Amino acid sequence: MKVSELGQFGLIDMIAKTIEKARDEKADSWQNLLVGIGDDCAVWRGDITNQLAKVDCQVEGVHFNLDILSWEDLGWKSLAANLSDIAAMGGIPEYALVSLGLPQDTDVENVISLYKGILKLAKLTGIAIAGGNVSASFKIFVDISIFGKTGNQEGKYLSRRAARPGDLIAVTNWLGTASAGFAMLTRKTKLEFKVSDCLRQAFSQPQPRLKEGKLLVREGVKTAIDISDGLLADLNHICQASAVGAVIQIEKLPIRDEVKQAFGSRSSELALSGGEDYELLFTARPEIINRVKKSAPCLITAIGEIVSEDVGQIILIDEEGKRVTTTARGWDHFKVRKGD
Amino acid sequence: MKVSELGQFGLIDMIAKTIEKARDEKADSWQNLLVGIGDDCAVWRGDITNQLAKVDCQVEGVHFNLDILSWEDLGWKSLAANLSDIAAMGGIPEYALVSLGLPQDTDVENVISLYKGILKLAKLTGIAIAGGNVSASFKIFVDISIFGKTGNQEGKYLSRRAARPGDLIAVTNWLGTASAGFAMLTRKTKLEFKVSDCLRQAFSQPQPRLKEGKLLVREGVKTAIDISDGLLADLNHICQASAVGAVIQIEKLPIRDEVKQAFGSRSSELALSGGEDYELLFTARPEIINRVKKSAPCLITAIGEIVSEDVGQIILIDEEGKRVTTTARGWDHFKVRKGD
Repeated sequence: MKVSELGQFGLIDMIAKTIEKARDEKADSWQNLLVGIGDDCAVWRGDITNQLAKVDCQVEGVHFNLDILSWEDLGWKSLAANLSDIAAMGGIPEYALVSLGLPQDTDVENVISLYKGILKLAKLTGIAIAGGNVSASFKIFVDISIFGKTGNQEGKYLSRRAARPGDLIAVTNWLGTASAGFAMLTRKTKLEFKVSDCLRQAFSQPQPRLKEGKLLVREGVKTAIDISDGLLADLNHICQASAVGAVIQIEKLPIRDEVKQAFGSRSSELALSGGEDYELLFTARPEIINRVKKSAPCLITAIGEIVSEDVGQIILIDEEGKRVTTTARGWDHFKVRKGD
Repeated sequence: MKVSELGQFGLIDMIAKTIEKARDEKADSWQNLLVGIGDDCAVWRGDITNQLAKVDCQVEGVHFNLDILSWEDLGWKSLAANLSDIAAMGGIPEYALVSLGLPQDTDVENVISLYKGILKLAKLTGIAIAGGNVSASFKIFVDISIFGKTGNQEGKYLSRRAARPGDLIAVTNWLGTASAGFAMLTRKTKLEFKVSDCLRQAFSQPQPRLKEGKLLVREGVKTAIDISDGLLADLNHICQASAVGAVIQIEKLPIRDEVKQAFGSRSSELALSGGEDYELLFTARPEIINRVKKSAPCLITAIGEIVSEDVGQIILIDEEGKRVTTTARGWDHFKVRKGD
């Protein structure tokens, strides 16, 4: 079987099972590993606090295209994707290792621009670039590993496995803005400056929600994921990991006016399936969600509910209260898409 | 300027300077970072012990070729390269993140074989595979990040910067065996089984010298590097970082009989410039080297001396006591080689 037939998530499942079988209970490292494959970060017991680690890779022609993204933004965005995973655990990022694959004819200036983007976001978030690697490669790739710790003394962290029926489902800020930016840049759509600038920013320089992640832990939230592959795909990870179902009210999706203005009736689809918003998706009891709404520095919107029926499924309810079906479930870079 | 003109080490220097300029002394992470770019691992202060981290990447067609390496050996070798860097710091490896780039038509079975090789070496060295990533990619790459800690209570570690004139230069085990294996496999040279098996093993399943690294720290050695790019290239890193020169006696190079038998007069060149042996190269006062010789579980050979003159240069002395020059200084994957 080819990896394209199995798909990204099928392949990850198979790898996770292979690793699980080889788990060596006698080794200190395995004993101290609290969360392995299957969440936003790995978690292990450190000397005092719990440690977090995550690797994420951006490959040219698969995840990015330098026709619509500058080298500096590529640097920012690559680091942001990792920081967003630390945010989804409620953690504090500390160190990064940057592994680059570069074709031999890459301009050195572009590599420096890439680092400029990385270092700008690193400074804003307090992390040190501790090391890295450069390899010759046929296409560019940016593979960043990030290390951090839990953002509280008790070592608490957010997980994908803790959603319970009756939890509300909520998100930070807006959905679909980054993919609206991607669509605008790819199709070279002309929009008024205020709109195009908003969409470009969301796509090129996403903001990892680190403050919000820590706040969620503080307010008692236990379940979160970051929206990297799209709301439906990422909510599906929570449903699978927690063995629950979910109901989403389409009319509640927080969508920027700029997106609605530019994409009209397609806005909901962007909000449901568009990737790379790097907002946090979380679930908790209604009273906790209300506390988060009051204390959060950003918009918090409840968009649905966790249910016990339809385990592993997401039910969409339209403006008229009718169930709708959708096939657009986010990104899987391995799957060969028909018609693409 | 293109990265091929600057070369791998020139590019790393430029990146290191870019990062150094952006260092934020107010951030805890920067304050706790003891060793950044320019050594075998990054080192930062943990809650109690010093922490080590390293990333290393193997790219198809650049670092490996599946015509002469099985998927399982690719897994082993990729992890071994990282563990060898932990060994060169005298550290203990604990956790790894495995980031894979895979073409869509990769057989799932091959990915499982790759993990089999990783997991076999992980078990032998006590590390847990804590997480990873899979990306679609045009060529295969295996990018592994490894985390560990210093192998002693005092937080001591080996470095490239501590070589002093009068130090002897020594190595663990044998040199040139892995590159002899590479040459044999590439050219399909027929050799008697005992010889071919020895060379293939050295190339396909290198042994990271973790025990030896810890022992070096214990015996008072301060300077080490692992031989990944070749003896001359890696000794050159020590000379540059320590601002010293080095003299190597070619006749003292420890070369296996199997290599001499198969490669005759080319053996010294393989030992000087062949990469991927993953042995440790270290320097210390003669009395310390003698102690290491007595307590080490493997062959330890003094092959030369650190000198104060000819800073940044390596002088080779042949069997007749004459200085010789060499142009083969190990690997630089970015440089376009004429005649290749």
